[in-house]
Amino acid sequence: MKLENVNSPKDIKKASVQELEALAEEVRAVILRQVSEHGGHLSSSLGTVELAIALHYVYDTPDDILIWDVGHQAYAHKLLTGRYKKFSTMRQRGGISGFPKRSESVYDSFGVGHASTSISAGLGFAVARDFKQKNNKVVAIIGDGSMTGGMVFEALNNSRQTKKSFTIILNDNKMSISPSVGAFSKYLSKLSVKHNSSLEEFGKFLRSIPEHVGGKIRDIMESGKLAFENIANPGQFFRDLSIRYFGPFDGHNIQELIEAFNDIKELPEVCLIHILTQKGKGYDLATTNPTKWHGSDPFHIEDGSVIVEKPHPTLTSIFGKTLLTLAKQNKKIIGISAAMLDGCGLNFLTEDPETANRIFDVGIAEEHAVTFAAGLACEGFTPVVAIYSTFLQRAYDQIIHDVALQNLPVVFILDRAGLVGSDGPTHHGALDLSYLRTIPNMIIMAPSDENEMRNMIYTATQYKEGPTAVRYPRAVTYTNDIRTEFSALPIGKFRTVSKGSKVLLIGVGFLLSKCLDAAGVLEKKGIKPTIIDARFVKPLDIESYKELFKEHQIVATVEDNSITGGFGSAIAEILAETKHSPRLVRIGLPDTFVEQGEIEELRDDLGLSGMAIAQKILTLL
Amino acid sequence: MKLENVNSPKDIKKASVQELEALAEEVRAVILRQVSEHGGHLSSSLGTVELAIALHYVYDTPDDILIWDVGHQAYAHKLLTGRYKKFSTMRQRGGISGFPKRSESVYDSFGVGHASTSISAGLGFAVARDFKQKNNKVVAIIGDGSMTGGMVFEALNNSRQTKKSFTIILNDNKMSISPSVGAFSKYLSKLSVKHNSSLEEFGKFLRSIPEHVGGKIRDIMESGKLAFENIANPGQFFRDLSIRYFGPFDGHNIQELIEAFNDIKELPEVCLIHILTQKGKGYDLATTNPTKWHGSDPFHIEDGSVIVEKPHPTLTSIFGKTLLTLAKQNKKIIGISAAMLDGCGLNFLTEDPETANRIFDVGIAEEHAVTFAAGLACEGFTPVVAIYSTFLQRAYDQIIHDVALQNLPVVFILDRAGLVGSDGPTHHGALDLSYLRTIPNMIIMAPSDENEMRNMIYTATQYKEGPTAVRYPRAVTYTNDIRTEFSALPIGKFRTVSKGSKVLLIGVGFLLSKCLDAAGVLEKKGIKPTIIDARFVKPLDIESYKELFKEHQIVATVEDNSITGGFGSAIAEILAETKHSPRLVRIGLPDTFVEQGEIEELRDDLGLSGMAIAQKILTLL
Repeated sequence: MKLENVNSPKDIKKASVQELEALAEEVRAVILRQVSEHGGHLSSSLGTVELAIALHYVYDTPDDILIWDVGHQAYAHKLLTGRYKKFSTMRQRGGISGFPKRSESVYDSFGVGHASTSISAGLGFAVARDFKQKNNKVVAIIGDGSMTGGMVFEALNNSRQTKKSFTIILNDNKMSISPSVGAFSKYLSKLSVKHNSSLEEFGKFLRSIPEHVGGKIRDIMESGKLAFENIANPGQFFRDLSIRYFGPFDGHNIQELIEAFNDIKELPEVCLIHILTQKGKGYDLATTNPTKWHGSDPFHIEDGSVIVEKPHPTLTSIFGKTLLTLAKQNKKIIGISAAMLDGCGLNFLTEDPETANRIFDVGIAEEHAVTFAAGLACEGFTPVVAIYSTFLQRAYDQIIHDVALQNLPVVFILDRAGLVGSDGPTHHGALDLSYLRTIPNMIIMAPSDENEMRNMIYTATQYKEGPTAVRYPRAVTYTNDIRTEFSALPIGKFRTVSKGSKVLLIGVGFLLSKCLDAAGVLEKKGIKPTIIDARFVKPLDIESYKELFKEHQIVATVEDNSITGGFGSAIAEILAETKHSPRLVRIGLPDTFVEQGEIEELRDDLGLSGMAIAQKILTLL
Repeated sequence: MKLENVNSPKDIKKASVQELEALAEEVRAVILRQVSEHGGHLSSSLGTVELAIALHYVYDTPDDILIWDVGHQAYAHKLLTGRYKKFSTMRQRGGISGFPKRSESVYDSFGVGHASTSISAGLGFAVARDFKQKNNKVVAIIGDGSMTGGMVFEALNNSRQTKKSFTIILNDNKMSISPSVGAFSKYLSKLSVKHNSSLEEFGKFLRSIPEHVGGKIRDIMESGKLAFENIANPGQFFRDLSIRYFGPFDGHNIQELIEAFNDIKELPEVCLIHILTQKGKGYDLATTNPTKWHGSDPFHIEDGSVIVEKPHPTLTSIFGKTLLTLAKQNKKIIGISAAMLDGCGLNFLTEDPETANRIFDVGIAEEHAVTFAAGLACEGFTPVVAIYSTFLQRAYDQIIHDVALQNLPVVFILDRAGLVGSDGPTHHGALDLSYLRTIPNMIIMAPSDENEMRNMIYTATQYKEGPTAVRYPRAVTYTNDIRTEFSALPIGKFRTVSKGSKVLLIGVGFLLSKCLDAAGVLEKKGIKPTIIDARFVKPLDIESYKELFKEHQIVATVEDNSITGGFGSAIAEILAETKHSPRLVRIGLPDTFVEQGEIEELRDDLGLSGMAIAQKILTLL
């Protein structure tokens, strides 16, 4: 059986375990080749090859529902469900998604991307099944990393709302992107080692006890029922939530997985199957360093070296190094990450003994991260919460209720603001300016270059009157000329880049460069626009803006945030209340979900190029 | 010792237990009198009188930190911390808050209002304490209802980030506002009954076993260590999260509480103290029906009858009755509540056998509620998620990522949109139009009267193309003339109430009435404005609006949402891009947190009266 002949899961139903094992090797090789050539999520998907095969072998998909939490581990699932031929297009413009996506395949029952949603969604499918009086199965596959997200507990607490089969597969590889953190992760580790030994010893003891005290045995069984269950079933934690626990099983043993799934499938209960897998399985470099190989650019399979070296450091590393410098000077600075120390650049601080103990990785727990920061701020510390733009959406209420309402000086660092590229619509940071701008007391900054970024981070950590946010895109820097001094920026003030007339271009953050490009085009037509680096999205220096508006006929705002409610909207609020105002052109992300693609490709598609901006302005003049 | 002489917790430190018990009775009587005269949260605070006394007796507040989760149970805490004389001003404009509030008292360590934040914030305080090398204690007091919120689990998972004393008091009264739901609640009940009996029986068994098998006893102790711990310490669930469990204790026995707190206080560990209390304790009517008496209008203490009958049904009940009617016709409708069945009007459906099984109370778990709904919608159901405006902030990411991105037809019902009155800034629904408007695919409706509200709910449940939201304020209706037929509204279309000239007044939702008031004032000055009922906040019929704009000099938008990013902002977006546009006046809630007070008082303060609106317009003409 060759993978190219697997057009749907039906094609593997009659295979022997040996054939499935061979298929697993082929799937693994295809994943490795694809990611090495085009980049993508490697370690997670290499760890779930046998799992995906066993699931599609046992379950009757797509009638039976599989929901892959986060979904970056679902490449094997994609290959087994008719997407082998399109696999090389994955994560590219017009290609298949790197995540399960309902519009892409009937086998992708639920779209994912953010963590910890699968059990809640699965319960929705299960309850719907119950109402329809059907018997299809629902399976949520969730990693131990995702289990640190609070909504998982909310879902587990409600899981008995289905009265029929609902299966949770806990894919335990001891990792989020970084190693899993917290007490629950320790508990899972204990489960993994304790299982067989204690069960066997207890059985031995029972058999060895003299017959004449046998009556007492039943007594202990009764009075100590809870205790006995805890040995017979080491997953007492889950039993306490009325969930049956099975495992742990070897997640790379197809035979064992198939037997387990078959045994449990028909049980009219909520069952949790605990499987142990290895992130990066089958590619030694990845098993040795799964964090590095979580997501990857194209690389040489032989030695893991990247094919194209990035010419400059990333903005992420600029942040990390900047905060490291500041944290060495200011012992009140505390860094907080939600399971993404490396992704957010806080690894620079964990690797330095002087700052390591001031960095907290709280797991995939954005809500807790923010309120924990609020508590620290109450006691005079300067917490710096570094979370990707799209994931900070999770903590919108906590930012409002626990931070802004009490006007606490918490610093929010939003990496991956704007378009993120191949991760696509679940991961674009398209809304942060809009949602942060709704929050009273919030100060929002967007740097237009690396040095301004450093000064904004400095300004934020110096500011004591309330919350601040600094947002910047996924990008490499444009310069290696990073200055060493810091200077605090005046709150709310924009920077005039160059003075012109008629046309006023206001760039937000790194999209200032698009304004400069547009100005180049306009200047060729004899129009020299005024160019402004907004710096602040909130508050705005309204009076100075009004002065500028008086002097121009057209105002164009350029941002990589939705034009609905974003910076352009803030300018519209000012303009609409101003007498004799110029025309406004809001240029930014559309009020739709933007698909995947290279960032610059997408910007071009969306009219976020200097040429497109200039043309829009010219048609209005 | 009289309560009036308790100026700070120091004044109770030397009291005997008998004196404290007498004080408890007095505190209880003062709370009962206050709520009976002015309204407020009754049952929760009656349940925590002994707890508050014992805490302030044992702990050295305000150096020791007390954080009351949600905080509506903290009235006794307020009375013991210098606010006896101001107590009668509670929840009124200019008075003290009904919730702990940092700006009000040094004893209010952390401001609260939304559930499930206390352990996260407490950990922030505890970690700050550790860094400062101080020894003050941190205590988070949380109800079993709040334990259903996911961020509690996120915090528990991280609780070992402090290496010193951190105490969680689980105040278990078996209730959220409605009875607590879910598996965790069942688990707590088991703990409460099992505790003593199983421990004693196990001890008895151990003593009864013959001496010559004694060697084996040690073996079972070893191999069954987990099991033994589970009997010796019934809170295994918490131990599995590396938290020491103590309890349950009688939460109304001051002596027992003091001893427990003293025993545990100095332990350098994360400890959870499980106490059992009765919601409404001391007022029989409240203990019998704690849901009804959770929050109350002024009432006669003797028989519980309200002092002023409401002349009309509430909008909450209009929603409940409307959905009941629709759900009887349409079996696909499923109602979802986050621990507020009564508060949201879903009790009308739980009380009807035809619809009861289609209503799900998921606990204080807004995130799960939304993603659970998404799963149901995938399978062709029409989930109706009814959550207060301010609490739906918790699920912002899930609305975006799980619902809107997949364009699933989930209906959101936002009660308490706009100003809510005496609950104040933590509870005002000031931001929903702003945050929902950022979300692609979302349809947002705001009814201006009861019949329109019914039609909007109908429209939403009929709409299959994507998510919809209907938002309305905390209010009684203005009419008893509720029609019985339904008609679907054309998506995005406004309604013209009356045609005039020069001035265009656009009312959002029930604030249309303020436009009518303003028109009355303007007409006396000879200006007859055009009046529009916006109906939709998203999408907007931009072309029709543009036509209207052409015909007027001044446009005023009137909404009970923040003017930052709200409906006015949407109109500003249109106007700023329109040639020769009229001036815009955005009238709504300010971009600050609004304090407590009667809704109409607050509206007057904020310029949301017909008179103030008319005057603003007149100054521009």
